[in-house]
This record gives sequence, C-alpha cells and structure tokens, in this order.
Amino acid sequence: MSFLAELDASRGFRVEVLAIGDELLDGRVADTNTLRLALALADLGLKISQRTTVTDDIDAIVREAKAVAARGTQLCVVSGGLGPTRDDVTSEAFAELAGVGMVRDEAQMRRIEERLARRGRPMTENQRKQADRPKGAELIPNPNGTAPGFALRHGGCVFVSTPGVPSEFDAMIANDVVAPLKRRAAPIEKRSLYCFGVTEGEVDARLAPLAELCPSVRVGFRAHIPEIHVSLSAPAQEIGALEKALGFTREQLGVAVFTEDKEPFAKVILDALKKHGATLTVAESCTGGLIGDLLTDIPGSSEVFLGGFVAYGNELKEAALAVPKGLMVDGGVVSEPVVLAMADGAAKVTGATYAIAVSGIAGPGGGSEEKPVGTTCMALIGPKIREARTMRWPFDRRRNKMVSAYAALDLLRRTL
Amino acid sequence: MSFLAELDASRGFRVEVLAIGDELLDGRVADTNTLRLALALADLGLKISQRTTVTDDIDAIVREAKAVAARGTQLCVVSGGLGPTRDDVTSEAFAELAGVGMVRDEAQMRRIEERLARRGRPMTENQRKQADRPKGAELIPNPNGTAPGFALRHGGCVFVSTPGVPSEFDAMIANDVVAPLKRRAAPIEKRSLYCFGVTEGEVDARLAPLAELCPSVRVGFRAHIPEIHVSLSAPAQEIGALEKALGFTREQLGVAVFTEDKEPFAKVILDALKKHGATLTVAESCTGGLIGDLLTDIPGSSEVFLGGFVAYGNELKEAALAVPKGLMVDGGVVSEPVVLAMADGAAKVTGATYAIAVSGIAGPGGGSEEKPVGTTCMALIGPKIREARTMRWPFDRRRNKMVSAYAALDLLRRTL
Repeated sequence: MSFLAELDASRGFRVEVLAIGDELLDGRVADTNTLRLALALADLGLKISQRTTVTDDIDAIVREAKAVAARGTQLCVVSGGLGPTRDDVTSEAFAELAGVGMVRDEAQMRRIEERLARRGRPMTENQRKQADRPKGAELIPNPNGTAPGFALRHGGCVFVSTPGVPSEFDAMIANDVVAPLKRRAAPIEKRSLYCFGVTEGEVDARLAPLAELCPSVRVGFRAHIPEIHVSLSAPAQEIGALEKALGFTREQLGVAVFTEDKEPFAKVILDALKKHGATLTVAESCTGGLIGDLLTDIPGSSEVFLGGFVAYGNELKEAALAVPKGLMVDGGVVSEPVVLAMADGAAKVTGATYAIAVSGIAGPGGGSEEKPVGTTCMALIGPKIREARTMRWPFDRRRNKMVSAYAALDLLRRTL
Repeated sequence: MSFLAELDASRGFRVEVLAIGDELLDGRVADTNTLRLALALADLGLKISQRTTVTDDIDAIVREAKAVAARGTQLCVVSGGLGPTRDDVTSEAFAELAGVGMVRDEAQMRRIEERLARRGRPMTENQRKQADRPKGAELIPNPNGTAPGFALRHGGCVFVSTPGVPSEFDAMIANDVVAPLKRRAAPIEKRSLYCFGVTEGEVDARLAPLAELCPSVRVGFRAHIPEIHVSLSAPAQEIGALEKALGFTREQLGVAVFTEDKEPFAKVILDALKKHGATLTVAESCTGGLIGDLLTDIPGSSEVFLGGFVAYGNELKEAALAVPKGLMVDGGVVSEPVVLAMADGAAKVTGATYAIAVSGIAGPGGGSEEKPVGTTCMALIGPKIREARTMRWPFDRRRNKMVSAYAALDLLRRTL
C-alpha cells in the first residue's frame, strides 16, 4: 500500500484506533479487534496510544478523526461502518473529512454482485454502496467478506479503514498493515511459555529479577484461567539477552511450563501419550465431563483417548466402575480411596494404559466443616504409578471444575 | 451522591466513558466494563455516546477529560488507574484537571490498612496512595476491593472514577451511579426471551414487523452461540405495547424460546426433569463430555443427572453400553441405530428415566462423501419416546460439539 510506504516502523510513530459502531457502545459487542491488533503491532515494536469508540454518526467520526490527526498520530486503524445498511457511514464521513466526493469502484461492484449471486441474493442499491469510497482513497481488498476497505491520508495521518467483523479485520490488517510495515520494521524476536500450576503473583515475583538481568527484554504475562501465558520479546539484535531471559524463565517456572509452542494443554498431554504408545480413560465426578470435553476438543484425540465415565451419582460409580459401596460410606465419596477405585474401574472396563479420576465438592452447596467447598480428590493410575492427591480450591463452581480438570490432567503430564 | 443528584435521567443527557490503562491497549485485556455499563444504563433510558481509551498517562487523561466535557457530556464514567502502583495516575490527573491538590482520606487509609493486615501484608507508601483523592472530590466506596473511587465536577460534566477490575467496577456503578440515577429515571420495562434452534437471521426476519406494530418498543438481539437472546424494552407507560410485542415475539419464536427468566439452558432442562420426577443419563461420543459438563455446571444437578458415559472409542461403546459390534460395522458409528443402542445401554446401566446419546463427526478430519464433517446423530429414549435424528452442522469442531450438545438436550426439552 503506497500510503503506508512512508511509515518506518523501525523509527516508531504514534498509532491510534478509531472504532465505529452503535453495537460497540450499546452492550452488544465487546471490541476485541484492538486486542489482536495490539499484539500484531507489538511484533513490529509499535504501540497503540489511544482508542476512540464512536457511534455510527458522521459528525462524531469527522470530529474524532480530526482530533486523531491533530495529536500527531501517523497511523490510525479505523474499523466498522462499511457494511450495506443505512447506518454504515464511515466512507461518507471520511469523504467529508477529506473534502472530496465518493467514487464507485466498478471492479468491486462486480465482485460484490458475484458474491451475492453465489448465495442467491439480489444486488440492491445498499449492496452497491459498499463499492464506494472517498475519491483519492486507496482500495484495501477484503478477502473474507463483501465490503472492501480503504486508506487515505489526512493531516499527516494515514487512516486505514476496515470492516469491524473480526475475521475480515484480521485478514486485512495482516495483509495491508502489518505486512507492508514489516518490511521496514526493526525485527522483534519473541518467546512464549504457557504454564499451569503457578499463580500470576508467583510468576511476577519469580520473574522480577529479569528487569535488571536482561533490561532489553520485554516480559509480559496474561492469565488465561487456569493457565498463565508468559511472553518474552526483544529486538532481534538482542537475541543473546532474549535467550538468557528464556533460560532464566525456564529455570524459575520449571515443570509448570507445559508448552513453548502455544499448544493447547490437552494437546500436550495427548501428544505425550501418543509418544509413549499409551491410551487414557477418565472417571469424572465433580468435573462432570469437562476433562473429556477438553481432550476431545483436540482433533485426533480418539487415537489415545478411549473415553470415560461421568460417574456423577454414587449408583453409577458402583454400577459402571465397581467402586465398593463400603468405601463411599466409610470415607465419603470425596476421598482418595474412592478416586483410586474409580480409576481402577475405568481402567478395567476400557483397558486403557492410564486412568484419571476426580471427585470433589464444586460448590456452592455440599460443603462440610471437614470437607469444605472446593475440596477435590484426584487419582492417576498407570504402569508405574498409583497416586492420589487432595486439593482445596477457593473459586466458584465453574472455576473449581476447570482447575480440577487441569490439575488431574497435570498429574499425568508430570508423570509422562 | 450529591454530584449526581442534579442529573435527571428522565430528560436524557450525554454519557461518555473514559477507560484508562496500558493493559487495555497492549493486548492484555479487553474492556468488557463498557458492555455491562451500557446494559445497565439502557434500563434508565440512557446511551453511551463515546468511549475514549488511553494509557496511564497524566497528559493524555487531562487532555481527553477536557475534550469529554467540551463535547457537552454531563456524565463520564472513568475506569482504571486507581491502584497502588506508580503507573496508577488517575487521581493525580483529575487533580491537575481541576487545578487542585490531593487530600488523604484517613478513614480510607485505616480501611486499606485493615484489609492488608487481614492478608498479612504490610502497609507501604504505595498502598497509602490509594486513600488520596483530588481536593473537593466526593468519595465512592469500593465494597469489593482496596482502592476507593471518587466523583468530581469539571466544566459541566460529572466524572465518576472507579477501578477497572470488573467486580469492583460493577458494584460501584450499581451503588453510586445506577441507583441514584434510577430515582429520577423514566422507568423502563424489559422482557427477555432466550432461544435455541433459530438463527440470528431468522429472528431478525420474524421480528421485523415489530418496528411498525409496536414502534415504542425497542427490540434487541444478541447471539450467545448457540443461543440467541432477544430483549424487548419500552418506557413503563408503554407497557401495553410491550406486552403486545411480547405476545407477537412468543408467537413468532414458539418453542425455540427456552426461558423468559434468563436461566441457563441446562437449568431449564434439569428443572423440567425435577418437575416430572425423572432422572437423566447421557452417552456421549463426539461431544466428549460436554453435555455432562453443561449439566453439572448447574448447582444441584446431581438430584436428576445420574451421570453418563464418554463413549468415545468403539470398545467403550461395546464394553460399557453393550452396543452390538455388528451395528457399528453395518451402518457406521455415526448412525441412528447406534445412538439408539447407546441410549439403551446408558439407561440400562444407570436406571435413568431418560437417556440421551450423541455420535457425530466434529471435524476437521473424519468426514466422507456420504457422511461429511458435521454429520451428527442423536437419540432420546424415555417412558413414551424413542426418537433419533440426524443433523449436519457447518461449523468448526468446537462449535459443532456445542450445537450437538444443545440439540441433543433440546430433544429432551421439547419432549418434557
């Protein structure tokens, strides 16, 4: 894109976002585009300084676009308001800002017509409007949707306008903002470590020395409950410092790191089982099927995950898993002997190499003084292991279930 | 709050949001506060006209706060930047805006000290800073956290500043913004209908006549995949029109509406089972435990949900559910006879009144010409029912699983 050609990411410049749409301010939609844009720009060493969100209102768009340029912004990513409805006024607003008329792009109009024809829809005047853009603006093709975007320069700022639909926004930003800027950006190197079994506070404390140890490395972390994702980044010429920081981080976080390849937690476990030629079954009480759900979200999980039991009621624990009734009466259903028996039962029925079992009190009811809400027993049995653990989580029902599912799978991960 | 006393929601006024924090612009956090604030304000007949998001930068905060007031805004909700770290500069910025110094609130300081002491943490100078606010600003108590908020008037606009943490933000907005404004607001009546089994486009088309039929009723809908939530609202004096719109909507959406009480889908089903004195079991193949997970997210589900089987592999279908091997060989595992046999097996082992079974090809692999990815068979058996269905979903793996789980539970809901 020629408008972006003069921007040199390696020197840095001010970037803003102008998000347009009633739906962003009336409680319908959370703007997640800025999130992904920020991460993409961080790889170029660029930051977003400000975001302005306005309704589909020409005056507001013009006023705020002027203010964006007046603040010395050199790149403003504009999203939303390019669709076929009467509410969509972004193109008109930017024509007004630039003091130009609108032109209709015949090639785009034919493309829109073809897309509609394929879905058996008629071409209406509203649809045609999507082929219009301010005179002098550059076209930005939309590979994932109908409405193209445009770029124009006003008052020292390049405005790049794209639809707000995330899949369309992401593709157009990647093709026509990030790719051209990358050619001149100072390359950034990045490492990611995904962890389970440490809190955000612990990660913060353990990695605090990095600020002095490797000052050129930027450390970020983000809680994806119950995971913590740590990222380290540095200019490419500081690769030595980055590797040093990576070594320090690995040392500090140890076995809590389950992947450095951004793989889902469940996939790491399935891959490890595959490597060992092993299979898995689960017997879930309080997690209610969540462990199975996590595992089966991974394509190809059926190769090693044989399935399992949602042994929610005691009858099913007895009937399907042959857990002795006496065991449940003696120590209660949430006890280490019971989860071991559940795992034994599941392994026996399925013939799996490893079996995991979980039983706990997810809350909000069902707690007692001896076994308060959050108390969870989990077991792992396998060729060289027979282990049970009891944890007590302080969370709500959903989060207690989620962390129980992770902790049970983590027993297996650490064993493999 | 005295600053808000002069605002009359029944007459309407301009509202803006000023969100403060590096984490909102660097890809760490999506601002969801505006979403919930918008919904709360809609009940008072108020709209958010604009949102400005800036980093923790005093100059930017002062500049944008001035611009907010200059646009004729009468209420600006400010969030973020009130914590104990050096980055937190919101109070200082507003003191600068108002041209006043800071005052320390001794009562708040003691409260902060007590909160820290309870967690065994020392009182540091940083922590003390949270008891500071601009001179002349009103205190806004924080029932869910350490840092209090404040309100002050500048240039015709009341700025209400709260922490950005959602639980703290929500409580302070409810207590000190919504509650005082409600006293003078024109009351709004609202009805919600939660649906499954219709698309957003269908809902849109079926409810289109409402615009002419009941022009005073505001119709909104929001996709919570795979649910669609429809809301109808109107000024209280238009209750007749609202009830008419509700009647029309019920007629148009029919049995697709599963609740008008905002209850989770799984809870509606569990409650219906409870009412019938019935119990439930599930045999899940492609959903992998997700149905059990949805059901067990509801507290008290154990009263009617006996548990089930994640019969992912064929061995388990045979061993635990006694599905005849021949059946799986003849028609394939994804077939109506197999899901009926799975349901039979689950009902037999558990003795449940109803049994649901699902088997399908969630993708991305595993499809064939005859049975492409997305093909899903589901069965329901019970006292007066023995039914199987085959659907074909066009989604990705996760969404195919989710809609399969819902569709299987929906068979039961429509039967009950």
